[in-house]
Amino acid sequence: MKTFTLQTRKREEFLEITHLVRQYVADLNGFSGSVLLYIPHTTAGCTINENADPDVVRDMLLELSKIVPRVSDYRHAEGNSDSHIKASLMGSSQSILVEKGELILGQWQGIYFCEFDGPRQRTFHLKLIHDHE
Amino acid sequence: MKTFTLQTRKREEFLEITHLVRQYVADLNGFSGSVLLYIPHTTAGCTINENADPDVVRDMLLELSKIVPRVSDYRHAEGNSDSHIKASLMGSSQSILVEKGELILGQWQGIYFCEFDGPRQRTFHLKLIHDHE
Amino acid sequence: MKTFTLQTRKREEFLEITHLVRQYVADLNGFSGSVLLYIPHTTAGCTINENADPDVVRDMLLELSKIVPRVSDYRHAEGNSDSHIKASLMGSSQSILVEKGELILGQWQGIYFCEFDGPRQRTFHLKLIHDHE
Repeated sequence: MKTFTLQTRKREEFLEITHLVRQYVADLNGFSGSVLLYIPHTTAGCTINENADPDVVRDMLLELSKIVPRVSDYRHAEGNSDSHIKASLMGSSQSILVEKGELILGQWQGIYFCEFDGPRQRTFHLKLIHDHE
Repeated sequence: MKTFTLQTRKREEFLEITHLVRQYVADLNGFSGSVLLYIPHTTAGCTINENADPDVVRDMLLELSKIVPRVSDYRHAEGNSDSHIKASLMGSSQSILVEKGELILGQWQGIYFCEFDGPRQRTFHLKLIHDHE
Repeated sequence: MKTFTLQTRKREEFLEITHLVRQYVADLNGFSGSVLLYIPHTTAGCTINENADPDVVRDMLLELSKIVPRVSDYRHAEGNSDSHIKASLMGSSQSILVEKGELILGQWQGIYFCEFDGPRQRTFHLKLIHDHE
């Protein structure tokens, strides 16, 4: 398992970490299986989506904030209940396939760390999982 | 694989099962890898989120019921289409990292069984997945 | 890893692929572990939900389109930002348990490829993951 640290800059943003995952996997010399990305936070999550046009991420963040408004009948005193809900909607882990040291991503796919209550220093974990072959 | 049974008490509630997952993993004597939690239901799911302030779960449930209203243009005759949608939004499985018999959870993270159409008797499965080391 | 191709027929539809996953797993002669389903697209995802009453899928699609409207303050020029968001809400992968060559699905569970920007030719990957036993 390897743990990475990153610094987010806004309350809500998606930081692309594809290059970090790719590098981690490439270092392992022809590994095939999958890599598990895990986010050990409750107001941040992860997702896989388009990394070509930055407007996709911008639209996702804006629309998520309409789906889960920041102000509602929330009781949690920290005022970040929306962040917790968005984290669960995106998910706390992602599995990505690996073949001979290469990530098997679709043409437009990037891997994102989803910050919903920044800016903060955050961490995420990567772990390699064996396949059957 | 191990199957657990639990009894939910309300139509919608998150039951924390972190202690059950932790115990299962601890029994395996230093195992490293990941544990896969799987929910074999279509109106219940699972998520990982805060277990310190119970208002977080309360807020999540209340807001999910606004996002996916119980009454809408649904056709499914059982009247629980909202439950099915919420189950898919949370997800039917979660992967949690394990190092030397310990769950690698964030400081505030708990593992939840998400009931969206209870009260019912429910089950969930746990399975250990090998890592690369 | 095995890659499958499918043709979707509508802008939004859930195509059940349970039989394809079951067949893939059955060919492996008593394998136990899990199977990882991965969708290499950014406007399609996957979920596990009811396959008995087709109205459940119909209700899920209709309600998802209310939660994430097709027209909003989107900037992404392709006009499919809603598709990207729905793909992330459902997820790009699913893990399903396998015991002795059989999928461990709940009684009403089916595995769905979720098209949110069709019709298109699409692909998905399956990979077997070893368990601890």
